[in-house]
Amino acid sequence: MSSTEQEARAALMRAADVGDTLMGRLVAHCGAANAVEAIRARALPPEFAAQEAEQERPPDLVARLNAWHARLDASNPAADLETGGRLGARLIIPGGPEWPTQLDQLGASRPLGLWLHGSANLRFSCLRSVSVVGARAATAYGLHIAAQFGVGLSEADWTVVSGGAYGIDGAAHRGALVGQSPTVIVLACGVDVCYPSGHHNLFTAVREQGVLVSECPPGVHPTRARFLIRNRLIAALSRGTVVVEAALRSGALNTAGHALSLNRHLAAVPGPTTSGLSAGCHKLLRERKAVCVTSPEEMIDLVGTMGDDLASHSRGAAVPRDRLNETAKKVLDAVPARGGAGPASIAVAAGVSLDVALSALGGLGAAGYVERTDKGWRLRRTTSAAYRKAPESAALDTPPAREDAPDDLPFPEDHPDDLPPAPLPTAHGVLT
Amino acid sequence: MSSTEQEARAALMRAADVGDTLMGRLVAHCGAANAVEAIRARALPPEFAAQEAEQERPPDLVARLNAWHARLDASNPAADLETGGRLGARLIIPGGPEWPTQLDQLGASRPLGLWLHGSANLRFSCLRSVSVVGARAATAYGLHIAAQFGVGLSEADWTVVSGGAYGIDGAAHRGALVGQSPTVIVLACGVDVCYPSGHHNLFTAVREQGVLVSECPPGVHPTRARFLIRNRLIAALSRGTVVVEAALRSGALNTAGHALSLNRHLAAVPGPTTSGLSAGCHKLLRERKAVCVTSPEEMIDLVGTMGDDLASHSRGAAVPRDRLNETAKKVLDAVPARGGAGPASIAVAAGVSLDVALSALGGLGAAGYVERTDKGWRLRRTTSAAYRKAPESAALDTPPAREDAPDDLPFPEDHPDDLPPAPLPTAHGVLT
Repeated sequence: MSSTEQEARAALMRAADVGDTLMGRLVAHCGAANAVEAIRARALPPEFAAQEAEQERPPDLVARLNAWHARLDASNPAADLETGGRLGARLIIPGGPEWPTQLDQLGASRPLGLWLHGSANLRFSCLRSVSVVGARAATAYGLHIAAQFGVGLSEADWTVVSGGAYGIDGAAHRGALVGQSPTVIVLACGVDVCYPSGHHNLFTAVREQGVLVSECPPGVHPTRARFLIRNRLIAALSRGTVVVEAALRSGALNTAGHALSLNRHLAAVPGPTTSGLSAGCHKLLRERKAVCVTSPEEMIDLVGTMGDDLASHSRGAAVPRDRLNETAKKVLDAVPARGGAGPASIAVAAGVSLDVALSALGGLGAAGYVERTDKGWRLRRTTSAAYRKAPESAALDTPPAREDAPDDLPFPEDHPDDLPPAPLPTAHGVLT
Repeated sequence: MSSTEQEARAALMRAADVGDTLMGRLVAHCGAANAVEAIRARALPPEFAAQEAEQERPPDLVARLNAWHARLDASNPAADLETGGRLGARLIIPGGPEWPTQLDQLGASRPLGLWLHGSANLRFSCLRSVSVVGARAATAYGLHIAAQFGVGLSEADWTVVSGGAYGIDGAAHRGALVGQSPTVIVLACGVDVCYPSGHHNLFTAVREQGVLVSECPPGVHPTRARFLIRNRLIAALSRGTVVVEAALRSGALNTAGHALSLNRHLAAVPGPTTSGLSAGCHKLLRERKAVCVTSPEEMIDLVGTMGDDLASHSRGAAVPRDRLNETAKKVLDAVPARGGAGPASIAVAAGVSLDVALSALGGLGAAGYVERTDKGWRLRRTTSAAYRKAPESAALDTPPAREDAPDDLPFPEDHPDDLPPAPLPTAHGVLT
């Protein structure tokens, strides 16, 4: 019997397990239609059988052929296509206009076809896409991060690809729906089977603003094996994968492994080392398999176009003190916090001449860093009052507020009970 | 006047700022005693002055000489040594038996000498040492981790080096005191000045079970500059530095920079991306400047002897299911969770022959994975009862408990309301 390419592939999708590489090689060898013929006739092309026999661990061709034959017998590809059409789903095959050619990288485990259900065009949607994956039993922290990444990526016109499961997957998809970009759910069951059923509404929304994808025919239910094999599609469809939360042994790390073997970008979000659900992420970071990302911007920086999509370089707040010149800083460091010191001893302590010290003290005083008392110069406590007192026209900036402080450096106002006593202008005080 | 090497260096430690590289080069050029003479005479050795003049940005030798001279005049090295001795402190100098030779890597910024106060031998203590640094205003999470690292390192015979400040430093030192190893506090003030004063008891305990270190003479108070320059010693004394918590702009990152420039190991502990106090750690990880470590063992693995101090490879728990052979797994996947299916349809679904399916079902049944009902074979809910029912002698292991499960594979007992309905033995059910 002859059959269209599409019908032939629909038939083979029933006959073979998902990701069956022997089937993949057979189709590559003789085409889908001939593969169907061969299976119905229980006779593989001789040269194909020969080349398989030459393999290091040759597959049991007879057993496989029998398995395929039994399933093909029980299958009805025309009915599948009809059912799918009735659901509003479509079957795309390699070479078709909507086929994401990046899947060809999967070689013999490339899907025979993909069932799609949703408004988005899979190929276009995945041109700028990131896979956000992680634990199903996620923590509140992980869910927060996943949603943050979903929103951030979607609002930056990046498609979020994930598995539609509870936990990280769901939070990422929901976040993506907040933005305007499509989101892609890759299922381990037929596009008409809602697993998990608690995500019925999510799936409905994604059909509106994205697309459901599956390499399983309609009506097929998820199995353990299908979940693991499904993960290769999540990794292969996107430009890069980010693991938000993953236990040391998890499907998310399985997806990460696929991303690595496909030479896609791999990123991991750090978390508390006290959380077992971040252990998988930390393992990837520790082994330098994944890049550490802490925001959607950093993920886009990683997978985006070189030069475009750059994340802003994270840096601490600049503090007014930065704008003091070296001499002023030296002199300021030599001014005691309590009591007071004369310009001469301050000059010696700072290692500058008296003139330099005097002019610096003048500037620092005008800027509100120091004040002159009857005991001499001392640091001025920085208070809102001090800020107000500082003249707008001051050549120097107002003193830093405590929260601006690099957190290791002592501030007068930091530990009020904890100040070094005022250095005396003697050999053991300021004079160091 | 002539003076002993120790007294000469004590004098120069008063004359020069800590980490003064010009002074370092001068002493390297003509020795400490001659340097003192030269400063007192306000006359630098001509060839030294000449070589300094040749530098790209030649220092203002006159100004520096004047500053040194003024401080030297005001100083009394003999009194410093006497005071230090009275305190129970000791001054060690390069070439001495307790001098940590790794400091020589600092070149011209190597300390002229170090004041020590405490029972531990600095050189021996630092042979196996790790610097644990981080934010002063640390979070409860950071304090927990710092203490954990302190205890773990100390109990593994590693010395914890840090700055004795509030927050991470203090928690790391206190943790180290729990173990039997010495801990080293590098101060930015004289060893007799307790800063922060709230750490008086900590310092006392460390003098007992470790040592206080400072390049400042007795009585000297901390300044902003001294804290930053002090950090190079923390990095240089140890084999590696771990940053536990650090803001984007912090002294801890300053220490990390020193560790990098000295080619020491640098590690960072990840934390919640929602915490600004982990942002510095994540920056180091993201830029691949630091290795991700989550436990003291991993830190020891990093700095320890190749092959010796290896951290155990972190991995998830093995689950009984791991021990099923491929065929048994295939068959198990083909057994419905509800209702039931006959061996024939299970065989077709699993892609195996009927005989194989029957024997696999027998074994899976004996092991308590599946049960036979009047509707056919189905998955058995794993309950404590099921465990008890499983025969001790079973060739296969008992079914995995939920918590053993890789976290995104579906389990019957995982989401009871969320099971895929029992696949029917028809083209749209099990037969894929």
